[in-house]
Amino acid sequence: MSENEKHGKGGVYSVKGEEFDRDSRYIPTRIVKDPAPGSDDYPVEPGRYRLVAAYACPWANRAIIDRDLLGLQDVISMGNPGPTHDADSWTFDLDPGGVDPVLGIPKLKDAYLKRFPDYSRGITVPALVDETTGEVVTNDFPQITKDLFFEWKDFHKDGAPDLWPEDRREEMEAVMERIYTEVNNGVYRCGFAGSQEAYDAAYERLFTALDWLEERLADSRYLMGDKITEADVRLFTTLVRFDPVYHGHFKCNRNKLTEMPNLWGYARDLFQTPGFGDNVDFQQIKDHYYKVHTDLNPLGIVPLGPDLSGWTTPSGRG
Amino acid sequence: MSENEKHGKGGVYSVKGEEFDRDSRYIPTRIVKDPAPGSDDYPVEPGRYRLVAAYACPWANRAIIDRDLLGLQDVISMGNPGPTHDADSWTFDLDPGGVDPVLGIPKLKDAYLKRFPDYSRGITVPALVDETTGEVVTNDFPQITKDLFFEWKDFHKDGAPDLWPEDRREEMEAVMERIYTEVNNGVYRCGFAGSQEAYDAAYERLFTALDWLEERLADSRYLMGDKITEADVRLFTTLVRFDPVYHGHFKCNRNKLTEMPNLWGYARDLFQTPGFGDNVDFQQIKDHYYKVHTDLNPLGIVPLGPDLSGWTTPSGRG
Repeated sequence: MSENEKHGKGGVYSVKGEEFDRDSRYIPTRIVKDPAPGSDDYPVEPGRYRLVAAYACPWANRAIIDRDLLGLQDVISMGNPGPTHDADSWTFDLDPGGVDPVLGIPKLKDAYLKRFPDYSRGITVPALVDETTGEVVTNDFPQITKDLFFEWKDFHKDGAPDLWPEDRREEMEAVMERIYTEVNNGVYRCGFAGSQEAYDAAYERLFTALDWLEERLADSRYLMGDKITEADVRLFTTLVRFDPVYHGHFKCNRNKLTEMPNLWGYARDLFQTPGFGDNVDFQQIKDHYYKVHTDLNPLGIVPLGPDLSGWTTPSGRG
Repeated sequence: MSENEKHGKGGVYSVKGEEFDRDSRYIPTRIVKDPAPGSDDYPVEPGRYRLVAAYACPWANRAIIDRDLLGLQDVISMGNPGPTHDADSWTFDLDPGGVDPVLGIPKLKDAYLKRFPDYSRGITVPALVDETTGEVVTNDFPQITKDLFFEWKDFHKDGAPDLWPEDRREEMEAVMERIYTEVNNGVYRCGFAGSQEAYDAAYERLFTALDWLEERLADSRYLMGDKITEADVRLFTTLVRFDPVYHGHFKCNRNKLTEMPNLWGYARDLFQTPGFGDNVDFQQIKDHYYKVHTDLNPLGIVPLGPDLSGWTTPSGRG
């Protein structure tokens, strides 16, 4: 995702006196196994779609991780915009010639405009693009990872994890909802608060939720028990950004992640699981936030810290 | 001190592309026991001078601590400007009516102009002001604490610490010099770096020095052995600001102070010593940096963190 959907202006996400409010209107088209007649949904089809996902972005990072966990790498290709973007679009500035090698476009926006010539909202990742037409299909990030699991099941690798266990489904949805509003989005609410009052309230909400998670993980290896689920993927992408970015840049600084023993052990446990840590690029993460948010960090200096060597130390869990 | 001596413009301390450079030209007048004939030095005299020192400022905090350690509270009075200041001056905004009750002025600048009507440099704390004339005497912060020790000896309390031990003097001067250039000023060099290159170099210098201190304090309770000296006062005022301000605001974020066991134990040991922790006001410290440096923190939001409860836990030293 890019947060510029709110104000449509590069680098300006916080408005003095305002509480941060995420525009969550995404393209509702889906890729499904059996498109309903008359819907604009697209059919599941190996080799047809490209996941465009920046390693920097936590919402895109979810889809990158799920794709690997489920073994969909040969079924859905992937393009990766660089960590910084301007007011206009995420760009393929890391690719040779600055062009995505499959889609042949320099800007993700090109795929949006191909399908919707008048598209005026934010150009966000993750996005799925139809390689046959070059048109964006969807950027609805929570639906994207849900559909990777339920709609693409025929193409999952053998032994793929059951990320949405039926018997825990109801509780898991509630946990994910609280994680979304209080943690995933909670860090942004701190960082983009436009007043001291809005920040203070956001900080209290965030750490109340982190304390709840710290307690929940005291006697449970993962959020929903002894197996990894989608809830873990969604929490992980925020936790891995916490000390490098949110702690300082977003002023989420009651303590570092490393100071919450259960969450820190849990995050390292996941980091050391194939599909998680190997899909984390700390430099891109830092570059993104510190260079793009010029209203919070006018000079664009990217911190050299924190020392990240702890991520590969034994977690003592599991 | 206020850092606006460099550019003379409120809130602007970093210049894009430039390395931070502190203007260290202060008023060289001193208060001494025996003023040399023909010099402009002032004589030591109980009840005549007022130390103007903001609790927010690390350079002023040194003088506040030394005054207490040496028992000079009834000999030299003290006025305390509030944590924020504008481009013009530190102000007595915390005092009734916004006026220092002894000097009768709203701005420290008034005392500077009383003596030097054309004074054009920064209005800095600590400053010593002659109560009989209302004129500033000096703002030369390293000389001020040195003179509090050597020139005011006749008025020290019984059992005052020997902050400048003769037998360690040479080494102590070298230690203090390295602490000044690499740590006290080193954090500012990180925070006000005008380019990524200047910041990167500043960060390496700072943590090289902190690693040296961490090692030095492994088998020495204080910097110069088993007794508190001026070197400890000078290091302490930076350490106590490290996690609340420098770690995030100045991007000195390889690790928190709490992650360097010897320095953290040492800092707590001092904090719990009368004269140190009771002269630390964390809220004023945070308000100062986060509200005054609008070029680094445009919205002026002051972080609620970090959790400071660790400061009163046993240090395990001494």
